[in-house]
Amino acid sequence: MTGFADRLVAATRKLGPLCVGIDPHPSMIPELFGPPTARSAGEWGRAVIDACVGRAAAVKPQAALFERWGSRGMIALEEVCAAAKDAGLIVILDAKRGDIGTTADGYAEGYLGLHSSCPCDAITVNPYMGIETLEPFVSLAEKYSKGVVVLARTSNPGSKDFQAKLIDGEPLYVHVARALAPMIKRLKGESGWSGLMLVAGATGPEDAERLRAAAEDALFLVPGYGAQGAGPSDAMASFVKGPAGLEGGVISASRSVSMPDAAKNARDGEAWYLAVSRAIEAAQAELVAAARARD
Amino acid sequence: MTGFADRLVAATRKLGPLCVGIDPHPSMIPELFGPPTARSAGEWGRAVIDACVGRAAAVKPQAALFERWGSRGMIALEEVCAAAKDAGLIVILDAKRGDIGTTADGYAEGYLGLHSSCPCDAITVNPYMGIETLEPFVSLAEKYSKGVVVLARTSNPGSKDFQAKLIDGEPLYVHVARALAPMIKRLKGESGWSGLMLVAGATGPEDAERLRAAAEDALFLVPGYGAQGAGPSDAMASFVKGPAGLEGGVISASRSVSMPDAAKNARDGEAWYLAVSRAIEAAQAELVAAARARD
Repeated sequence: MTGFADRLVAATRKLGPLCVGIDPHPSMIPELFGPPTARSAGEWGRAVIDACVGRAAAVKPQAALFERWGSRGMIALEEVCAAAKDAGLIVILDAKRGDIGTTADGYAEGYLGLHSSCPCDAITVNPYMGIETLEPFVSLAEKYSKGVVVLARTSNPGSKDFQAKLIDGEPLYVHVARALAPMIKRLKGESGWSGLMLVAGATGPEDAERLRAAAEDALFLVPGYGAQGAGPSDAMASFVKGPAGLEGGVISASRSVSMPDAAKNARDGEAWYLAVSRAIEAAQAELVAAARARD
Repeated sequence: MTGFADRLVAATRKLGPLCVGIDPHPSMIPELFGPPTARSAGEWGRAVIDACVGRAAAVKPQAALFERWGSRGMIALEEVCAAAKDAGLIVILDAKRGDIGTTADGYAEGYLGLHSSCPCDAITVNPYMGIETLEPFVSLAEKYSKGVVVLARTSNPGSKDFQAKLIDGEPLYVHVARALAPMIKRLKGESGWSGLMLVAGATGPEDAERLRAAAEDALFLVPGYGAQGAGPSDAMASFVKGPAGLEGGVISASRSVSMPDAAKNARDGEAWYLAVSRAIEAAQAELVAAARARD
């Protein structure tokens, strides 16, 4: 099987860098799908998947917003991931997992394993406990052509508390990126890009350039575009020239594309689908235009 | 309802500081419970709960080792947590969750919320994304008399990678502990102890004393006792004098008490129960003796 990085890069070269977040905030699930429950979250998520097909390369279901409903939410999440895989989308599960030693094997097997009931191509993980704690994820990613997305610099205000703290003159997130070098190498594909990805919040072009310098081959997952405020050019500050314009990862947007104003009060499924499809197309077009303009 | 910290302190004064980890490593579930599946993990976990009653104040189910089996594993975890609550045990769910903004609400509601299908008294969380990302957990803990256990210093070798890095002359984990001061204050009970707990790995007495100095009122969850190698005295390095000997948190042990050699090949449930009960009693007695000896 083609490695994760090569699959992701090929798909973004074709469709653009947008990664659609599947974030079923309970107060935001349109009435059309019923009152907010695990079931309506799952149905809404699968409807968003349908609207992504042919319009976006990747989706990013948010585990927290399914786990709100416990095991019923997990069943809905599994259905959403399975639907996305069936539709040929690349699934980055945003679960921010992590634990020590053989305990982390549980998470790695549960999501990246051969018998996972929650099929995904990559999972987000938290590096706070150290590099060795990421090994179970990277091992399975190597074995099964999957990706591992490590939190480096997140896009929230609190990211300054610890991630931005200076250690020997450089922020912690740069130390994280550097320490990942051997793992980045292990998951490197034929495209030259690595499936050991970094979360690189679109908080400012300097941070992005710093992270790119520390991890040249890592694909980045850039959150913060759209509802969180970053423009397309800021979001692509870490991207570099590729055969189809700037490239270097995916840029995620959630409510701005999956919950646009026009979809909120859609009277029927058709109107909803049209509104969401258009929002995805518009965001993708904006990103692709920015990628070509700066190229 | 009595606050989480006061409940935990009262229970440990009565029974001792041992917290029994419920870690169903698939290769270690005794044959007696059947081949390793979500179902046998759940049955084994509930049997361990039975053995804890009257012998330990708290249990710590490990989410990763249930999530290995996806939503079926989550159902088993929910059953284990419900059984522990029904038995009057204090449940610290070891899930190491965390996310930004309103996304973290999903995890907080899912585990600490009023309608949680996975009832627990406290949950472990990861501080890497910053203090504000812990707010949803602390808010619900305040509201519903729950606890929040923040990773500060873990007991694994990789904890040196980032947690031990010096920032302005002090390790990151001390900065984490200090930054939590307002949250520690908010969850402080009548006992003077706070239900904003810290994971304080039993890696060495100096680390423990440093953490205690940085967070005087926080109860600590000390992992690393038993199978991970720390002795009872090291594990209690951060404890201080209380009415029933040293106190200041719980000390967790997993396989050394829930999977003792004598239980591995038990022929029947009765022999298994006896072996596990004795291991729990022995660990608890060792800790209580150490707490009194140093008092």
